[in-house]
Amino acid sequence: METVNQLLDSIKDVGRDAVRGGYSRAVYSTPELDLRQWFIEQAEQRGLAVETDRNGIIWAWWGKPQDGALVTGSHLDSVPGGGAFDGPLGVASALAAVDILKARGVQPPRPLAITVFPEEEGSRFGVACLGSRLLTGAIGVDKALNLRDAGGDTFADVARANDLDPRHIGPDPEALARIGDFVELHVEQGKGLGNGGPAVAVGSSILGHGRWKLSVHGQGNHAGTTLMADRSDPMVAAAQIILAVRGAAAKQPDARATVGRLTPVPGGTNVIASRVDLWLDARHPDDAVTAQLIEAIYRAATEAAAGEGCTVTLTEESYSDTVHFDPSLSQRISGLLPGAPVLATGAGHDAGVLAGYVPSAMVFVRNPSGISHSPEEYVADEDAATGAVALADVLEGLL
Amino acid sequence: METVNQLLDSIKDVGRDAVRGGYSRAVYSTPELDLRQWFIEQAEQRGLAVETDRNGIIWAWWGKPQDGALVTGSHLDSVPGGGAFDGPLGVASALAAVDILKARGVQPPRPLAITVFPEEEGSRFGVACLGSRLLTGAIGVDKALNLRDAGGDTFADVARANDLDPRHIGPDPEALARIGDFVELHVEQGKGLGNGGPAVAVGSSILGHGRWKLSVHGQGNHAGTTLMADRSDPMVAAAQIILAVRGAAAKQPDARATVGRLTPVPGGTNVIASRVDLWLDARHPDDAVTAQLIEAIYRAATEAAAGEGCTVTLTEESYSDTVHFDPSLSQRISGLLPGAPVLATGAGHDAGVLAGYVPSAMVFVRNPSGISHSPEEYVADEDAATGAVALADVLEGLL
Repeated sequence: METVNQLLDSIKDVGRDAVRGGYSRAVYSTPELDLRQWFIEQAEQRGLAVETDRNGIIWAWWGKPQDGALVTGSHLDSVPGGGAFDGPLGVASALAAVDILKARGVQPPRPLAITVFPEEEGSRFGVACLGSRLLTGAIGVDKALNLRDAGGDTFADVARANDLDPRHIGPDPEALARIGDFVELHVEQGKGLGNGGPAVAVGSSILGHGRWKLSVHGQGNHAGTTLMADRSDPMVAAAQIILAVRGAAAKQPDARATVGRLTPVPGGTNVIASRVDLWLDARHPDDAVTAQLIEAIYRAATEAAAGEGCTVTLTEESYSDTVHFDPSLSQRISGLLPGAPVLATGAGHDAGVLAGYVPSAMVFVRNPSGISHSPEEYVADEDAATGAVALADVLEGLL
Repeated sequence: METVNQLLDSIKDVGRDAVRGGYSRAVYSTPELDLRQWFIEQAEQRGLAVETDRNGIIWAWWGKPQDGALVTGSHLDSVPGGGAFDGPLGVASALAAVDILKARGVQPPRPLAITVFPEEEGSRFGVACLGSRLLTGAIGVDKALNLRDAGGDTFADVARANDLDPRHIGPDPEALARIGDFVELHVEQGKGLGNGGPAVAVGSSILGHGRWKLSVHGQGNHAGTTLMADRSDPMVAAAQIILAVRGAAAKQPDARATVGRLTPVPGGTNVIASRVDLWLDARHPDDAVTAQLIEAIYRAATEAAAGEGCTVTLTEESYSDTVHFDPSLSQRISGLLPGAPVLATGAGHDAGVLAGYVPSAMVFVRNPSGISHSPEEYVADEDAATGAVALADVLEGLL
């Protein structure tokens, strides 16, 4: 029996990123594979029966697998230079909760499973929650198999290299039917749980959110010999687009829009870029408003590009409508966690994808600074411990 | 005996970049090493004695190496996704010129050498003309050895892996003394040689130019959960800096300033960056004006960063004063190339570094579009042939 803090401590050296700080644990990278192996060993030590399904989702069963089970879990992959808790906190808390339930002498009246979903962050293939989207059919199989990572490998290539058969990847109704209720514990990613108050909250909804790629095409040239007046520099247009993104989102209450990734091509210091690719992450609780926001940004981008003699294309890479977690399940969880506030979140989660198919809910653990997707993401040991007990209480109550 | 076009044709498949287009031949990458080997074989086929000096510069000698030789040459490395001519045209023309001189029965009264300089572009280690800077002492040895490429290797590491002893890298007065006169033939990188007129020009000067790195430090965070008002997003400040660079350069006649390289850290789509590094290339014929330009940009950058709750640092990575080529040598070359106009250039060259130490000059070959550092860089076959004959005429006249 190990506490959630001991469990997290045992993986604290896996996938550290010396350059960015924090952790880089891209799906199917060596660190993420190490974490998957760690999870399998931990589950087996607890007598759970482990299986990896045809989409690479790991299931660890307490009791014989059957339809309508209670399922909890999260992910082990991270954004580049991410924190220690986003994902692993939910997995480690699930393992710790099993220990707590066993110590309490609980005999599950229905089976309980812990799941680990691959590519929740979308950091490698660009589509967040790829595992749960494949399981449910929320993403087309061909689209998924043809996604490419930065090294040029397709998801099909990488799946094959990780013992998954691309012909069997995709919707898995049998596996999905096994989820009677799904509960994901996750570090909170805002400041919704202030210091001094309760350390856990119950999730209500996830903002609608999506990713778009903007490619600005200009004229590559020599930085020293090309007169300023003769330039069609896509970096200048991209800068205007970044400011338009900020301006559009700042004007719209509750909207968030971010350019966190940008790649000039070819990317030489003494070279005017011929193309700049930038990625836009945009979210709003009202999906119609998100659509308007993207339209406004695209209009501004087109103008900025034209003003510089460039052109711009916009491609939607993924979009998820606003998700409301199952009200009845969430209410039961609230009843099991007296005093826990109810919080919406701006972050996407596998629970959000699953919510379209099976009753799903979330439990959040306090993040005092609200910082996430950063090496500075932090959860106090006592809050993590409280979270694991809360998850055990919830699972016991729902079983 | 091969023509310059045949020589260029024989390397047209080396280092093609399928993603960026054009060629990526970073110094000591496989393609650049292949080109170095190609040059050595070509030189040996012509009976030239080849040696690689302790800074990795290749010398191919026609006649016994001695002080005061006539030297011509250029480089084989490229910017990422560069053109076919920037560098290789000068090397191939030098080989072709030797053939032409031999066909003319020329017996050199003093030795003639062809040189290939490594890392002219600075695409791998960030300092342009690294080979000629090391040879002359224009860069400190410690600074050079500690330069790092994008993969994290130091120049010392890479030199060692390429059979250079880091303890012997640095100023080489014996090698430098062998250069009596240096002439570099290069593709023109502006539109100074219009169609219909002469195909070659004589260089007069190189704009003062430098590279600066700006690092904008903000607060990394989650793109979905962080309210717009709570952000210190270095990408937004970087965008303002890019526009300030454009604005400052556009206001200043004859100035050029470019941001062609930018790296957000960590660089995830759903992550507000914690830091953005961007590189500034700036040039002006008057070094004092360049200094003022950088000052104005840094002032604007500091304001932009502060407005976003970020900070910014500016580091000079390299700077070269405006270079005037040797007037007497250039005049003799003009006499040997009747009708060739005299052109200044905005691009840096090894000849510009050497000009501070030995009589140096340049010959430019027509670039009809003026496009360079791009796959679209172009030299017509007949102009390349004219350039090789012009170089032969110049070398014969100067020997």
